[in-house]
Amino acid sequence: MSDYWNEYPEIQENLMQVKNLISQRLVINNKSIEEAVTKFSSTGGKMIRPALFFLFADFGENKDQEQLVKVAASLELLHSATLVHDDIIDDSPTRRAMPSIQSRFGKDIAVYTGDFMYTSYFELLAESMSHTPFLLKNARTMKKVLQGELTQMTCTFNPDQTIRDYLRNINGKTAELIRLSCQEGAYFGGADAKLQARAKRIGSAIGLAFQVYDDILNFSLDLENSQKPVLTDVQQGIYTLPLLIARDNQPEIIRPYLKNPEALTHKELIQLAKDVSISGGMTGALDFAEMLTKKALREIQELPDGGNKKLIENVTKQLVERSY
Amino acid sequence: MSDYWNEYPEIQENLMQVKNLISQRLVINNKSIEEAVTKFSSTGGKMIRPALFFLFADFGENKDQEQLVKVAASLELLHSATLVHDDIIDDSPTRRAMPSIQSRFGKDIAVYTGDFMYTSYFELLAESMSHTPFLLKNARTMKKVLQGELTQMTCTFNPDQTIRDYLRNINGKTAELIRLSCQEGAYFGGADAKLQARAKRIGSAIGLAFQVYDDILNFSLDLENSQKPVLTDVQQGIYTLPLLIARDNQPEIIRPYLKNPEALTHKELIQLAKDVSISGGMTGALDFAEMLTKKALREIQELPDGGNKKLIENVTKQLVERSY
Repeated sequence: MSDYWNEYPEIQENLMQVKNLISQRLVINNKSIEEAVTKFSSTGGKMIRPALFFLFADFGENKDQEQLVKVAASLELLHSATLVHDDIIDDSPTRRAMPSIQSRFGKDIAVYTGDFMYTSYFELLAESMSHTPFLLKNARTMKKVLQGELTQMTCTFNPDQTIRDYLRNINGKTAELIRLSCQEGAYFGGADAKLQARAKRIGSAIGLAFQVYDDILNFSLDLENSQKPVLTDVQQGIYTLPLLIARDNQPEIIRPYLKNPEALTHKELIQLAKDVSISGGMTGALDFAEMLTKKALREIQELPDGGNKKLIENVTKQLVERSY
Repeated sequence: MSDYWNEYPEIQENLMQVKNLISQRLVINNKSIEEAVTKFSSTGGKMIRPALFFLFADFGENKDQEQLVKVAASLELLHSATLVHDDIIDDSPTRRAMPSIQSRFGKDIAVYTGDFMYTSYFELLAESMSHTPFLLKNARTMKKVLQGELTQMTCTFNPDQTIRDYLRNINGKTAELIRLSCQEGAYFGGADAKLQARAKRIGSAIGLAFQVYDDILNFSLDLENSQKPVLTDVQQGIYTLPLLIARDNQPEIIRPYLKNPEALTHKELIQLAKDVSISGGMTGALDFAEMLTKKALREIQELPDGGNKKLIENVTKQLVERSY
């Protein structure tokens, strides 16, 4: 587990239990794959989804820790499965500072490994929530996440992709699962319907803000001094909010870049990042992300008072405030 | 739908409903992918699993046709999803006499398409069986199917792979789902526990026999006159029962082929098929398959009398008796 939660010992304790459960479940008849999968699913990431789940679970009275850990683990497993398959599609060499499953074992193993994680996810749901409406909600969430991915793929390299398309895609591929994490936390923790609905809205705003900031980061890193490939999204035909806003503001400057983005040189990509900024793409996207963050924080203020409210506020700020 | 069930109008009527439900569920925000997926999942295959499901469902009194169609569709969708992902791994150009999803749309789309089918499968389960033990059984079945695939992959090119390894692999990758189809038919149709257990045993024997015959077929087609690649399994390092029996009978003849099977020429592969036959691989595998078929037929004789018993007997014979 990363040291992201060092200041939150209670969250760390819960996440450790989630990590252990995932390791127990991912038993594969091939030790090297099993080891890679277990490491991948439980050690590298920040485990944001189970963390949010536990934070919201604390508002209720349900202390069935076994059930809570299973539900939290299901969220992380679903997320991990989609990442393993995403890495196949993006040809990613690394994930969480380790070789990705697909680069280490090949795409074939990565397909089945992701599938195997889906089955473990599904098994946890069958064990923990078969008598609740969240079984069906999970099926629909998984469908929306995949629809988001598929729609994003069909939007790639489309210079006319709208901001609305972008929002729909990130709503599926990122916000949906974070929203579910918060909502499930409130539900399985035993909070009332009003708090469940609020948790869902908070998760929605956090999820969208998180992805928009992530996309802004792609354009705002110290690109000129970067040794790594820059604007990889653009080269893969994935057009995110800063670019789309800039294109709408100054089409004559931005559209030429979108004719053949795969062929853009390192130098041209850096110029594109500058042009996006000059055309108001960065400030526009930042304004939007800040609006979402404020919305989340406003809703968080309405949560019942107590230690957890402050924690959720801090975690939200930590999640969305990164270095620009 | 193929014309495989032309002589069974009742089965055809049920399968048509399954096909329609699957088409309704596979709504993807990209019409060409949607069309390919729908065609693939419902028109090309023999739909053996839903057919067996309905045959066994007829022994009980449950006439909730909507539920039965959903469960039957879930079986076909799970099967389809695994095929879409298998084709990625095998680099298959075709499936069911059409271009495979991966060859038509690329591996990227195929990964998500298979995932999307998993979500539709899962959604159907959540709708039709959340209050039954079969939700968890499905999760475990899916896990076993994947474990079968993963284990088979780790066995590839292993000249020392045992017959026991082979049986474990096909038990996971093929028999598990056919077994579940028969068992679910009996359960959701409303048959008693004894008949459910018998349906499970019949499915198990049919599933294993079906795969063994399929593997025999690979060695026994008119290879010398074949224009297509022959013994593709062997070249991919997948060693099936005829080969394994022959290797155990005559290691000095068969083992040399397994040193570098990828490099075998067309001529050498044809010689290998002959050597497998001479070494008793074909008769040994056929004996085994026949034993399984007889086991299935013996159990079928114990089913309650009626029209359906005869149907199941005929279908079983039709499934396993192919041209050699």
